[in-house]
Amino acid sequence: MDIDMNVPHEYVTAIDHVGVAVPDLDEALAYYRDCYGMVALHIETNEEQGVKEAMVGLPNQHPNAALIQVLSPLSEDSTIGKFLAKNGPGLQQLCLRTNNLDALSEHLKAQGKRLLYPEPKKGTAGARINFVHPKDAGGVLLELTEPAS
Amino acid sequence: MDIDMNVPHEYVTAIDHVGVAVPDLDEALAYYRDCYGMVALHIETNEEQGVKEAMVGLPNQHPNAALIQVLSPLSEDSTIGKFLAKNGPGLQQLCLRTNNLDALSEHLKAQGKRLLYPEPKKGTAGARINFVHPKDAGGVLLELTEPAS
Repeated sequence: MDIDMNVPHEYVTAIDHVGVAVPDLDEALAYYRDCYGMVALHIETNEEQGVKEAMVGLPNQHPNAALIQVLSPLSEDSTIGKFLAKNGPGLQQLCLRTNNLDALSEHLKAQGKRLLYPEPKKGTAGARINFVHPKDAGGVLLELTEPAS
Repeated sequence: MDIDMNVPHEYVTAIDHVGVAVPDLDEALAYYRDCYGMVALHIETNEEQGVKEAMVGLPNQHPNAALIQVLSPLSEDSTIGKFLAKNGPGLQQLCLRTNNLDALSEHLKAQGKRLLYPEPKKGTAGARINFVHPKDAGGVLLELTEPAS
Protein backbone atom coordinates (compact mmCIF):
# COMPACT_ATOMS: atom_id res chain seq x y z
CA MET A 1 0.00 0.00 0.00
CA ASP A 2 1.33 3.40 -0.95
CA ILE A 3 1.10 6.02 1.78
CA ASP A 4 1.26 9.74 1.12
CA MET A 5 3.74 10.68 3.80
CA ASN A 6 2.65 14.31 3.76
CA VAL A 7 -0.94 13.59 4.68
CA PRO A 8 -1.85 14.13 8.33
CA HIS A 9 -2.46 10.87 10.14
CA GLU A 10 -3.95 9.69 13.41
CA TYR A 11 -0.99 7.99 15.08
CA VAL A 12 -0.52 10.81 17.57
CA THR A 13 -3.25 10.90 20.21
CA ALA A 14 -2.12 13.49 22.77
CA ILE A 15 0.67 15.55 24.21
CA ASP A 16 1.66 13.04 26.87
CA HIS A 17 4.03 15.09 29.00
CA VAL A 18 6.64 17.79 29.26
CA GLY A 19 9.92 16.70 30.84
CA VAL A 20 11.66 18.97 33.33
CA ALA A 21 15.17 18.23 34.60
CA VAL A 22 15.68 18.86 38.32
CA PRO A 23 18.56 18.19 40.69
CA ASP A 24 16.33 16.97 43.55
CA LEU A 25 13.09 15.07 42.98
CA ASP A 26 11.55 15.55 46.44
CA GLU A 27 12.22 19.29 46.39
CA ALA A 28 10.60 19.58 42.96
CA LEU A 29 7.54 17.61 44.04
CA ALA A 30 7.09 19.89 47.04
CA TYR A 31 7.31 22.91 44.70
CA TYR A 32 4.64 21.65 42.28
CA ARG A 33 2.36 20.68 45.16
CA ASP A 34 2.74 23.83 47.24
CA CYS A 35 2.68 26.30 44.35
CA TYR A 36 0.24 24.75 41.89
CA GLY A 37 -1.66 22.02 43.74
CA MET A 38 -0.18 19.35 41.47
CA VAL A 39 0.63 15.90 42.79
CA ALA A 40 2.85 12.96 41.88
CA LEU A 41 0.57 10.47 40.12
CA HIS A 42 3.37 7.96 39.46
CA ILE A 43 6.99 7.62 40.59
CA GLU A 44 9.58 5.19 39.29
CA THR A 45 13.29 4.62 38.88
CA ASN A 46 14.51 3.66 35.41
CA GLU A 47 18.04 2.30 35.82
CA GLU A 48 18.55 1.94 32.04
CA GLN A 49 17.77 5.63 31.51
CA GLY A 50 19.65 6.62 34.69
CA VAL A 51 16.71 8.53 36.07
CA LYS A 52 14.34 8.75 39.00
CA GLU A 53 11.16 10.33 37.71
CA ALA A 54 7.69 11.39 38.72
CA MET A 55 4.62 12.10 36.61
CA VAL A 56 3.02 15.22 38.08
CA GLY A 57 -0.51 16.37 37.38
CA LEU A 58 -3.79 17.42 38.85
CA PRO A 59 -5.79 15.01 40.95
CA ASN A 60 -8.37 13.24 38.74
CA GLN A 61 -7.24 14.93 35.56
CA HIS A 62 -8.52 13.77 32.14
CA PRO A 63 -6.56 10.85 30.62
CA ASN A 64 -5.66 12.97 27.58
CA ALA A 65 -4.50 15.92 29.67
CA ALA A 66 -0.73 16.37 29.70
CA LEU A 67 1.53 15.73 32.69
CA ILE A 68 4.80 17.22 33.87
CA GLN A 69 7.50 14.57 34.02
CA VAL A 70 10.00 15.55 36.69
CA LEU A 71 13.37 13.95 35.94
CA SER A 72 16.22 13.66 38.44
CA PRO A 73 19.53 11.99 37.62
CA LEU A 74 20.79 8.77 39.21
CA SER A 75 24.36 9.79 38.34
CA GLU A 76 26.30 12.67 36.84
CA ASP A 77 26.98 10.72 33.63
CA SER A 78 23.31 9.92 33.00
CA THR A 79 21.39 11.82 30.31
CA ILE A 80 19.74 14.07 32.89
CA GLY A 81 22.98 14.46 34.85
CA LYS A 82 24.73 15.70 31.73
CA PHE A 83 21.78 17.94 30.84
CA LEU A 84 21.89 19.59 34.27
CA ALA A 85 25.64 20.11 34.06
CA LYS A 86 25.31 21.75 30.64
CA ASN A 87 22.03 23.69 30.91
CA GLY A 88 21.01 23.78 34.54
CA PRO A 89 17.49 22.76 35.55
CA GLY A 90 14.59 23.40 33.18
CA LEU A 91 12.58 22.12 30.23
CA GLN A 92 14.28 19.06 28.79
CA GLN A 93 11.84 17.26 26.48
CA LEU A 94 8.37 17.12 24.99
CA CYS A 95 6.58 13.81 24.61
CA LEU A 96 3.80 12.91 22.20
CA ARG A 97 1.60 9.88 22.83
CA THR A 98 1.00 7.48 19.95
CA ASN A 99 -1.30 4.52 19.39
CA ASN A 100 1.20 2.93 17.00
CA LEU A 101 4.88 3.66 17.61
CA ASP A 102 6.06 1.39 14.80
CA ALA A 103 3.87 3.01 12.16
CA LEU A 104 4.70 6.51 13.39
CA SER A 105 8.43 5.66 13.36
CA GLU A 106 8.21 4.44 9.75
CA HIS A 107 6.24 7.53 8.81
CA LEU A 108 8.90 9.80 10.34
CA LYS A 109 11.84 7.90 8.85
CA ALA A 110 10.23 8.07 5.40
CA GLN A 111 10.32 11.85 5.80
CA GLY A 112 14.01 11.81 6.63
CA LYS A 113 13.63 12.25 10.39
CA ARG A 114 16.19 10.41 12.50
CA LEU A 115 15.18 8.49 15.62
CA LEU A 116 17.68 8.13 18.46
CA TYR A 117 17.23 4.35 18.94
CA PRO A 118 17.10 1.69 16.20
CA GLU A 119 14.47 -0.14 18.28
CA PRO A 120 12.07 1.21 20.94
CA LYS A 121 13.21 1.17 24.56
CA LYS A 122 11.26 0.79 27.77
CA GLY A 123 9.91 4.05 29.17
CA THR A 124 7.62 5.15 31.97
CA ALA A 125 5.22 2.48 33.28
CA GLY A 126 6.28 -0.06 30.68
CA ALA A 127 5.61 2.16 27.66
CA ARG A 128 7.52 1.66 24.40
CA ILE A 129 9.44 4.84 23.60
CA ASN A 130 11.79 6.40 21.11
CA PHE A 131 13.02 9.93 20.45
CA VAL A 132 13.19 12.11 17.34
CA HIS A 133 16.62 13.68 16.97
CA PRO A 134 16.43 17.32 18.15
CA LYS A 135 18.05 18.46 14.87
CA ASP A 136 15.10 16.93 13.02
CA ALA A 137 12.51 18.26 15.50
CA GLY A 138 13.06 22.00 15.57
CA GLY A 139 15.59 21.85 18.41
CA VAL A 140 13.20 19.91 20.66
CA LEU A 141 14.15 16.58 22.22
CA LEU A 142 10.88 14.93 21.18
CA GLU A 143 9.90 11.66 22.81
CA LEU A 144 7.30 9.33 21.31
CA THR A 145 5.53 7.02 23.75
CA GLU A 146 3.16 4.13 23.19
CA PRO A 147 1.69 3.33 26.61
CA ALA A 148 1.56 -0.27 27.78
CA SER A 149 -1.91 -1.67 27.18
CA MET B 1 -9.32 34.57 56.33
CA ASP B 2 -6.01 32.88 56.99
CA ILE B 3 -4.78 30.67 54.19
CA ASP B 4 -2.21 27.92 54.68
CA MET B 5 -0.04 28.63 51.67
CA ASN B 6 1.45 25.15 51.70
CA VAL B 7 -1.85 23.40 51.19
CA PRO B 8 -2.59 22.29 47.64
CA HIS B 9 -5.29 24.37 46.02
CA GLU B 10 -7.50 24.24 42.96
CA TYR B 11 -6.48 27.39 41.08
CA VAL B 12 -4.57 25.40 38.43
CA THR B 13 -6.89 23.53 36.08
CA ALA B 14 -4.62 22.14 33.34
CA ILE B 15 -1.32 22.27 31.55
CA ASP B 16 -2.42 24.73 28.89
CA HIS B 17 0.48 24.58 26.45
CA VAL B 18 4.17 24.14 25.84
CA GLY B 19 5.84 26.98 23.98
CA VAL B 20 8.36 26.25 21.24
CA ALA B 21 10.45 29.00 19.66
CA VAL B 22 10.87 28.72 15.90
CA PRO B 23 12.43 30.98 13.27
CA ASP B 24 9.66 30.39 10.69
CA LEU B 25 6.01 29.82 11.65
CA ASP B 26 4.80 28.34 8.36
CA GLU B 27 7.69 25.88 8.21
CA ALA B 28 6.98 24.78 11.77
CA LEU B 29 3.27 24.32 11.08
CA ALA B 30 4.07 22.15 8.05
CA TYR B 31 6.39 20.05 10.23
CA TYR B 32 3.80 19.42 12.96
CA ARG B 33 1.14 18.61 10.36
CA ASP B 34 3.22 16.34 8.15
CA CYS B 35 5.03 14.51 10.95
CA TYR B 36 2.41 14.25 13.69
CA GLY B 37 -0.96 15.08 12.12
CA MET B 38 -1.29 18.17 14.32
CA VAL B 39 -2.99 21.30 13.05
CA ALA B 40 -3.07 25.01 13.84
CA LEU B 41 -6.22 25.57 15.91
CA HIS B 42 -5.58 29.30 16.39
CA ILE B 43 -3.14 31.82 14.90
CA GLU B 44 -2.56 35.37 16.04
CA THR B 45 -0.05 38.18 16.10
CA ASN B 46 0.65 39.81 19.47
CA GLU B 47 2.45 43.09 18.80
CA GLU B 48 3.00 43.80 22.50
CA GLN B 49 4.79 40.47 22.95
CA GLY B 50 6.53 40.81 19.56
CA VAL B 51 5.36 37.42 18.41
CA LYS B 52 3.37 35.66 15.72
CA GLU B 53 2.07 32.47 17.27
CA ALA B 54 -0.03 29.40 16.56
CA MET B 55 -1.72 26.98 18.94
CA VAL B 56 -1.12 23.52 17.52
CA GLY B 57 -3.01 20.41 18.54
CA LEU B 58 -5.01 17.46 17.36
CA PRO B 59 -8.30 18.01 15.57
CA ASN B 60 -11.17 17.79 18.09
CA GLN B 61 -8.93 17.33 21.10
CA HIS B 62 -10.30 17.52 24.67
CA PRO B 63 -10.50 21.09 26.08
CA ASN B 64 -8.16 20.10 28.92
CA ALA B 65 -5.59 18.50 26.62
CA ALA B 66 -2.43 20.55 26.19
CA LEU B 67 -1.40 22.38 23.03
CA ILE B 68 1.92 23.26 21.46
CA GLN B 69 2.31 27.01 21.13
CA VAL B 70 4.57 27.73 18.19
CA LEU B 71 6.22 31.13 18.66
CA SER B 72 7.98 33.07 15.91
CA PRO B 73 9.54 36.49 16.45
CA LEU B 74 8.32 39.72 14.89
CA SER B 75 11.78 41.22 15.34
CA GLU B 76 15.26 40.28 16.55
CA ASP B 77 14.88 42.32 19.72
CA SER B 78 11.61 40.65 20.76
CA THR B 79 11.60 38.04 23.54
CA ILE B 80 11.50 35.18 21.06
CA GLY B 81 14.03 36.85 18.77
CA LYS B 82 16.48 37.11 21.66
CA PHE B 83 15.72 33.55 22.77
CA LEU B 84 16.51 32.21 19.28
CA ALA B 85 19.74 34.20 19.09
CA LYS B 86 20.88 32.85 22.45
CA ASN B 87 19.56 29.27 22.45
CA GLY B 88 18.45 28.42 18.95
CA PRO B 89 15.00 26.94 18.32
CA GLY B 90 13.44 24.68 20.95
CA LEU B 91 11.37 24.52 24.12
CA GLN B 92 10.88 28.03 25.49
CA GLN B 93 8.11 27.95 28.09
CA LEU B 94 5.50 25.90 29.93
CA CYS B 95 2.07 27.35 30.61
CA LEU B 96 -0.40 26.37 33.33
CA ARG B 97 -4.07 27.29 33.02
CA THR B 98 -5.76 28.87 36.02
CA ASN B 99 -9.34 29.71 36.92
CA ASN B 100 -8.19 32.62 39.12
CA LEU B 101 -4.97 34.36 38.12
CA ASP B 102 -5.22 36.96 40.87
CA ALA B 103 -5.61 34.40 43.65
CA LEU B 104 -2.88 32.19 42.23
CA SER B 105 -0.57 35.20 41.90
CA GLU B 106 -1.14 36.15 45.56
CA HIS B 107 -0.59 32.54 46.58
CA LEU B 108 2.73 32.42 44.71
CA LYS B 109 3.94 35.80 45.97
CA ALA B 110 3.14 34.76 49.54
CA GLN B 111 5.57 31.89 49.01
CA GLY B 112 8.29 34.23 47.81
CA LYS B 113 7.90 33.51 44.10
CA ARG B 114 8.50 36.49 41.83
CA LEU B 115 6.19 37.24 38.90
CA LEU B 116 7.58 38.99 35.83
CA TYR B 117 4.80 41.61 35.54
CA PRO B 118 3.29 43.67 38.37
CA GLU B 119 -0.09 43.35 36.61
CA PRO B 120 -1.36 40.69 34.18
CA LYS B 121 -0.86 41.30 30.46
CA LYS B 122 -2.91 40.24 27.47
CA GLY B 123 -2.03 36.80 26.12
CA THR B 124 -3.36 34.41 23.51
CA ALA B 125 -7.01 34.91 22.54
CA GLY B 126 -7.54 37.65 25.12
CA ALA B 127 -6.36 35.62 28.10
CA ARG B 128 -4.90 37.34 31.17
CA ILE B 129 -1.33 36.13 31.66
CA ASN B 130 1.71 36.49 33.85
CA PHE B 131 4.97 34.57 34.25
CA VAL B 132 6.78 33.11 37.25
CA HIS B 133 10.44 34.06 37.21
CA PRO B 134 12.49 31.10 35.93
CA LYS B 135 14.78 31.35 38.97
CA ASP B 136 11.73 30.73 41.17
CA ALA B 137 10.34 28.00 38.92
CA GLY B 138 13.12 25.43 38.64
CA GLY B 139 14.69 27.04 35.59
CA VAL B 140 11.40 26.96 33.67
CA LEU B 141 9.85 30.07 32.13
CA LEU B 142 6.41 29.33 33.55
CA GLU B 143 3.42 31.17 32.15
CA LEU B 144 0.11 31.39 33.98
CA THR B 145 -2.96 31.95 31.83
CA GLU B 146 -6.56 32.71 32.72
CA PRO B 147 -8.54 32.27 29.50
CA ALA B 148 -11.02 34.95 28.49
CA SER B 149 -14.51 33.85 29.45
